[in-house]
Amino acid sequence: MTLSFAVQARDGAARRGVLQTAHGPIDTPVFMPVGTAGTVKAMTADAVRATGAQIVLGNTYHLMLRPGAERIARLGGLHRFMDWPGPILTDSGGFQVMSLAQLRKLDADGVTFQSHIDGSKHRLTPERSTEIQHLLDATITMAFDECTPFPATPDQARDSMELSMRWARRSRDAFVPRDGYGQFGIVQGSTYPDLRARSAAALRDIGFEGYAIGGLAVGEGQQAMFDTLDVTVPHLPADRPRYLMGVGTPDDILGAVARGIDMFDCVIPTRAGRTARAYVPSGTFNLRNARFADDAAPLEAGCPCPACTRHSRAYLHHLFKAEEMLGPTLLTWHNITYFQRLMAGLRAAISAGGLDAHISRLRAGWTTAREEPA
Amino acid sequence: MTLSFAVQARDGAARRGVLQTAHGPIDTPVFMPVGTAGTVKAMTADAVRATGAQIVLGNTYHLMLRPGAERIARLGGLHRFMDWPGPILTDSGGFQVMSLAQLRKLDADGVTFQSHIDGSKHRLTPERSTEIQHLLDATITMAFDECTPFPATPDQARDSMELSMRWARRSRDAFVPRDGYGQFGIVQGSTYPDLRARSAAALRDIGFEGYAIGGLAVGEGQQAMFDTLDVTVPHLPADRPRYLMGVGTPDDILGAVARGIDMFDCVIPTRAGRTARAYVPSGTFNLRNARFADDAAPLEAGCPCPACTRHSRAYLHHLFKAEEMLGPTLLTWHNITYFQRLMAGLRAAISAGGLDAHISRLRAGWTTAREEPA
Repeated sequence: MTLSFAVQARDGAARRGVLQTAHGPIDTPVFMPVGTAGTVKAMTADAVRATGAQIVLGNTYHLMLRPGAERIARLGGLHRFMDWPGPILTDSGGFQVMSLAQLRKLDADGVTFQSHIDGSKHRLTPERSTEIQHLLDATITMAFDECTPFPATPDQARDSMELSMRWARRSRDAFVPRDGYGQFGIVQGSTYPDLRARSAAALRDIGFEGYAIGGLAVGEGQQAMFDTLDVTVPHLPADRPRYLMGVGTPDDILGAVARGIDMFDCVIPTRAGRTARAYVPSGTFNLRNARFADDAAPLEAGCPCPACTRHSRAYLHHLFKAEEMLGPTLLTWHNITYFQRLMAGLRAAISAGGLDAHISRLRAGWTTAREEPA
Repeated sequence: MTLSFAVQARDGAARRGVLQTAHGPIDTPVFMPVGTAGTVKAMTADAVRATGAQIVLGNTYHLMLRPGAERIARLGGLHRFMDWPGPILTDSGGFQVMSLAQLRKLDADGVTFQSHIDGSKHRLTPERSTEIQHLLDATITMAFDECTPFPATPDQARDSMELSMRWARRSRDAFVPRDGYGQFGIVQGSTYPDLRARSAAALRDIGFEGYAIGGLAVGEGQQAMFDTLDVTVPHLPADRPRYLMGVGTPDDILGAVARGIDMFDCVIPTRAGRTARAYVPSGTFNLRNARFADDAAPLEAGCPCPACTRHSRAYLHHLFKAEEMLGPTLLTWHNITYFQRLMAGLRAAISAGGLDAHISRLRAGWTTAREEPA
C-alpha cells in the first residue's frame, strides 16, 4: 500500500480522517506549515513539532537551486537534512518557477528558466520534477503542472489544463511507488466548472494517492474559490485525501473544510509571524502598534505556545520595535500554533457532528475589521 | 546577606566557587551570555537555559532607551519580561553611552547624551544608573563608571579612575541592598599598576559584593590585559567574586581564569553565531565556506546542542547561504554551548587541581591559524 487514508467521521461534506504514511500519521483536516528552503522560517524543527504540526511542506524550486536535490539525497534526504522525521510534502516546482524564476520559457515538454539566486539556467519537466522530489525523499510528491494564471479565458484555461493533464500522466509514469509514500495529481481548470470536471476525470483515470486543487487563491476571490470547490470536490474520489493548495486565511480554511477539503498549506502564519501580525481568536492585529507597549496580557490567553505562556504582548511589541530575531521566532511559533489549534477544533467538531455551529462560533468571534483584538 | 560567595577549590591563583543569589546559584568561573535588549539575540530563553548558562547580562543603556526601565518595572521586572527567572547582571550604561550614544557630554556629575535610536536626550548619573538597575530588578548591579579609553596618558588614566571612584561611592550610596542581590564596583586605571592598586583600594574601602575589572579588552592587547590582571587581582578581596568585563575569546578566558577571574561576559559567541563563525575545540571556522556544502559531519562531535546533534555542517552552511534565520539561531546556540562547556571544563580542572595541564591541552588542540577545523 502506498498511502492509506481512512475517513473516520463525516459532517456534511466535511470529513475527519487519518492519512498513514511512511513517516507517521497525519490527522485531517490538516494545515501544513511551509518550510520552503529546508526550514520553516525562524523555527527549529523542535519548535515546529511543538506547535502540533504533523507534516511540513518543502519547495522543489528552492531546494533544487540551493542546496540542490542530489546534494540533499547524498546527505540522506530532506527529513534528515532538516531534522523533520515526520511526513513532508513537496510541491512540483511548477508554481514557483512561474512566479519567481527569470526568463521562463514554457514548452510542451517543460519549462526552462534562470535561477533568481544566481541566474544559472535550469530545466524542469514532469520527469525531472518527479525525480527531484524522489531525491528529496518526499513523503507526498506533487505532479508537475502549470498553475493557470487568473483571469484566464476559457480557451487559455482549457489549453493550460490539458497541458497539465498530459504532464500529470508523465509525472505518474516517472513516480517510483514505495510503501507509505504517495503522489497527488492537481486539478486545474480555473473557475470553469466543465474544465474542473474534465481535469478531475483525467486525474482519476490516471489514479493518484491524493488529489489537489490548484489554480485557486490566485486572485479570484473567496466566493469564486468556494464556488469552484463546490463544483470540483464532487468529482474527486471520496476515499482519497483532497488538498487545496496555497490556502489560506482561517476563514478560507473554514469554508474549504466545510466543502470537503482535507489538506492545506499557506505561508500566512509564518510570513505574518515575521511581520508582527498575530492571529488570535478575535482576528489579527499588528504587534508593532504602540498600544501594546504596556500590555501585560498574553497574546492569546489559553494558547500553549511560549509567546503566550512565557511573555506579554508588551515584550513581543518590544522585540519587534527593537528588531530582535526572537520576535519573528515567537510570533511564528504562535501563529502556527493558532492554525494547528484551529484545525484540531475543526476535526473535533466534525467528529462531534457540530461543524456548522463550530464555524459559526468562530466567525462570530471575529471582529468586523478582523484587525483588532477583542 | 546580600550575596554569598563560597570558594570551593583553588588551583594556583584560579578558584572554583558558587555565588548564591536570590535567583539561583552561579557556578564560577562563569561565562554570561549577553542579552542586550531583553533577549540573547536569536535565542528563546529556554534555548539559553539549555546551553547550561546560569546568568545572563542585560544592558542598561539599551533597556533605558527601549522599552524603558519604568516600563519594565511596571511589567514585573526584567526576569519576567524576558522569561529568565535566573540571575541577571546589568551593566551601568556607562560604557555603552560612550560607545553608542550621540552628542555625549561628560561632566563631574554624570553624562548627558542623545539616544542612537531616536535622538531623544537622556542623562545618566551614578544615582540614575543605580535606580534603573533597581527598576530592572538586576540580581547584580554594576557601579556607574567611565571606561577609560585606551591608550590613556598616566594623567588621563588617573583623572578618569578618580572620577569613577567618586561615582562608585555615589553608586553605592544609591544602591538598595536586598537579600540575594548585590552590587559590584569596577576597578579602572588603564594599564598602570599603581592606578589599578589605588582603584582597588578605593573600592575595598567602599565595600561591594563583588569587584569587576573594567577598561580592558579595549585595544591594549592580550599580554597587557594579562599583565594588568597580574597586578590588579592581588588587590581584590579573596572572598568576593571577580569579574573581567567584556572578555573574551576562549584564549583570553583561559589566561584570566588562571589569574583568578571568576566571571566573564562577551558578545563573541552570540555575534559570531549570527555571522556564521563557529567555535569548536580546534579553533573557529566560517560556515559560509564552500567546503562545508557537502560535509555530513556534525559541527562538533560530542556537543549536546541541537546544531550538533540534529544537523550536519552542510545544513548549517545551507542555512547561512540561504540567509535563513535558523542559521544564526542554531549557531548561536552552539557557540554559547561551547563557551558553557569550556567553563565547565575549567571548573572541573580547578577542582581536580589540574588547571595548567587542562589549559595546555586545550591550547594544543587549537590549530596555529585558529581559523580551520582539525
